[in-house]
Amino acid sequence: MIIDCHGHYTTAPPALGAWRDQQIAGLNNPTTAPRPSDLKITDDELRASIEANQLRLMDERGIDMTIFSPRASFMAHHVGDFVTSAEWAAICNELCYRVSALYPGRFAPAAMLPQSPGVDPVTCIPELTRCVEEYGAVALNLNPDPSGGHWTAPPLTDQSWYPIYEKMVEYDIPAMVHVSTSVNPAFHTTGAHYLNADTTAFMQLIEGNLFADFPTLRLVIPHGGGAVPYHWGRFRGLAMAMKKPPLEEHVLGNVFFDTCVYHQPGIDLLLDVIPTKNILFASEMIGAVRDIDPCTGHYFDDTRRYIDNAGLAATDLADIQEHNTRAVYPRMSALLTQQVG
Amino acid sequence: MIIDCHGHYTTAPPALGAWRDQQIAGLNNPTTAPRPSDLKITDDELRASIEANQLRLMDERGIDMTIFSPRASFMAHHVGDFVTSAEWAAICNELCYRVSALYPGRFAPAAMLPQSPGVDPVTCIPELTRCVEEYGAVALNLNPDPSGGHWTAPPLTDQSWYPIYEKMVEYDIPAMVHVSTSVNPAFHTTGAHYLNADTTAFMQLIEGNLFADFPTLRLVIPHGGGAVPYHWGRFRGLAMAMKKPPLEEHVLGNVFFDTCVYHQPGIDLLLDVIPTKNILFASEMIGAVRDIDPCTGHYFDDTRRYIDNAGLAATDLADIQEHNTRAVYPRMSALLTQQVG
Repeated sequence: MIIDCHGHYTTAPPALGAWRDQQIAGLNNPTTAPRPSDLKITDDELRASIEANQLRLMDERGIDMTIFSPRASFMAHHVGDFVTSAEWAAICNELCYRVSALYPGRFAPAAMLPQSPGVDPVTCIPELTRCVEEYGAVALNLNPDPSGGHWTAPPLTDQSWYPIYEKMVEYDIPAMVHVSTSVNPAFHTTGAHYLNADTTAFMQLIEGNLFADFPTLRLVIPHGGGAVPYHWGRFRGLAMAMKKPPLEEHVLGNVFFDTCVYHQPGIDLLLDVIPTKNILFASEMIGAVRDIDPCTGHYFDDTRRYIDNAGLAATDLADIQEHNTRAVYPRMSALLTQQVG
Repeated sequence: MIIDCHGHYTTAPPALGAWRDQQIAGLNNPTTAPRPSDLKITDDELRASIEANQLRLMDERGIDMTIFSPRASFMAHHVGDFVTSAEWAAICNELCYRVSALYPGRFAPAAMLPQSPGVDPVTCIPELTRCVEEYGAVALNLNPDPSGGHWTAPPLTDQSWYPIYEKMVEYDIPAMVHVSTSVNPAFHTTGAHYLNADTTAFMQLIEGNLFADFPTLRLVIPHGGGAVPYHWGRFRGLAMAMKKPPLEEHVLGNVFFDTCVYHQPGIDLLLDVIPTKNILFASEMIGAVRDIDPCTGHYFDDTRRYIDNAGLAATDLADIQEHNTRAVYPRMSALLTQQVG
């Protein structure tokens, strides 16, 4: 079985974007603000958007299950205030839940949070709870920079984040650390901000001691860990200089990297440097890079090819494609067992 | 011959730091502000600081020449205003010049600029000019984020940077794109901010079209290009999606990566993915990571070992260790020829 731990609903029906546009317009003119109930998307529209896209590619590529969360760049937590984000998160999370209900065994929902710059993360708990208890969410996406590229939030090791971690531990769900659109002209969203956030988050975790407080907390760093595996010697050396334990002890009991690296040499490096148990198969398909690589004739984001061609032992391949992800996402594993057997 | 294109004066005599501390204290209490002439460092002090450190390691590692600039984390352009940075840059640049004069053929000076957040980069031209014409500076360090981690400056493709590029073209000198200390608690300076800046700058160059305006401009992205080579497929795919030419045409005529990557697999990836002509040997020794790697028994920053062990053809090795750097830094090459023959 092959599980993709990093999928977003990038192909939602256009009505979703239109509703969001109205919501944003309504920030300046509340009389035009839409209500959540104004958004009408039928199951047939959901099916069309999924079957022509993610499900088609999953079938072509042999991917059984995708952990499916709202479109990352559309989270845009910098827009409006907490109420804005709360309405938007509720709508987006419901759509991912509906997709998961339409395709049992193929999609498991993961929640976005109604984060808002400068607002206490504890305010996200009701939506988190709702998504786990009502929608069966198996994970959440945590944005370390809700400001959208201004990086005004404290590091992930700050106690203000702890209420979210407490709930994650209680529910035994992981978080993927994932930023959203950059509104800072210095940072291209998918070419700089995403990768920078991955690197930044990992270094925050090295600097702190979060997993002493939360020994069972699990965080997934997407996009192959940003710059981290490529600079693994630097990170090992920085940890030494900071008198931290070796990274295997200090963070690798709790931190995992996905395989969203879009060429063979990058995947080879990831597999070479990071312990197999810390690597989770993923593609973030129909995401940042949607074209066919002219050098290979295959889609850049068809990461299964790179993993298959990496010369892994069969047990390591199965760990990366299935077993590690089942261990990190036990609610997804239970759902799969229940739905697929 | 082996040329290290990325060295900083990280071991300057303590009087330099004490002067800077006084300068910073004087920002709030101008009566205590030191004058530049208050700083006294003798040639013997310079020699002691260099011979016990950089020169010792250069000899141990077989490095002939280092391009030597002020300590990057101490540039701290966010401190004070333009006058603060101008005094500080003048002092730091003079010290690197004096080191180069004490050791002909071993160090070539590169200049820091008196950047200051929100101040027009054109204000840096007098110091740049002075460093090239009086000190024989062969390059400069350009900070894409003088705010120190708040990223308030426009992208490097913005026309406000053009006066610096015009001078670089006039003098035929390259710039290394190098940030300084992060004062943003989200970003660890050497573990996140440095690498993020490298990735960010490269993506800014993909987004823009700077080298159409400056066909002979040359920029060096340090630390092995941040996350770029590891995600080369992503960057190629993003460029395609943006309807840019292939990266070889669009940026690799003008952009170069150094080899400050502190483990063998990272160096192997860099050499595998990036054309040889775009790679310049460097170590940034006595910098971010100063310990011995317990996995190898050698210093993390002894990058010559990784390059030597990468199985390169002799001509490629010589290009990376010498010829490429001579081509990118022609004033350094001329200086070397004049001093060493």
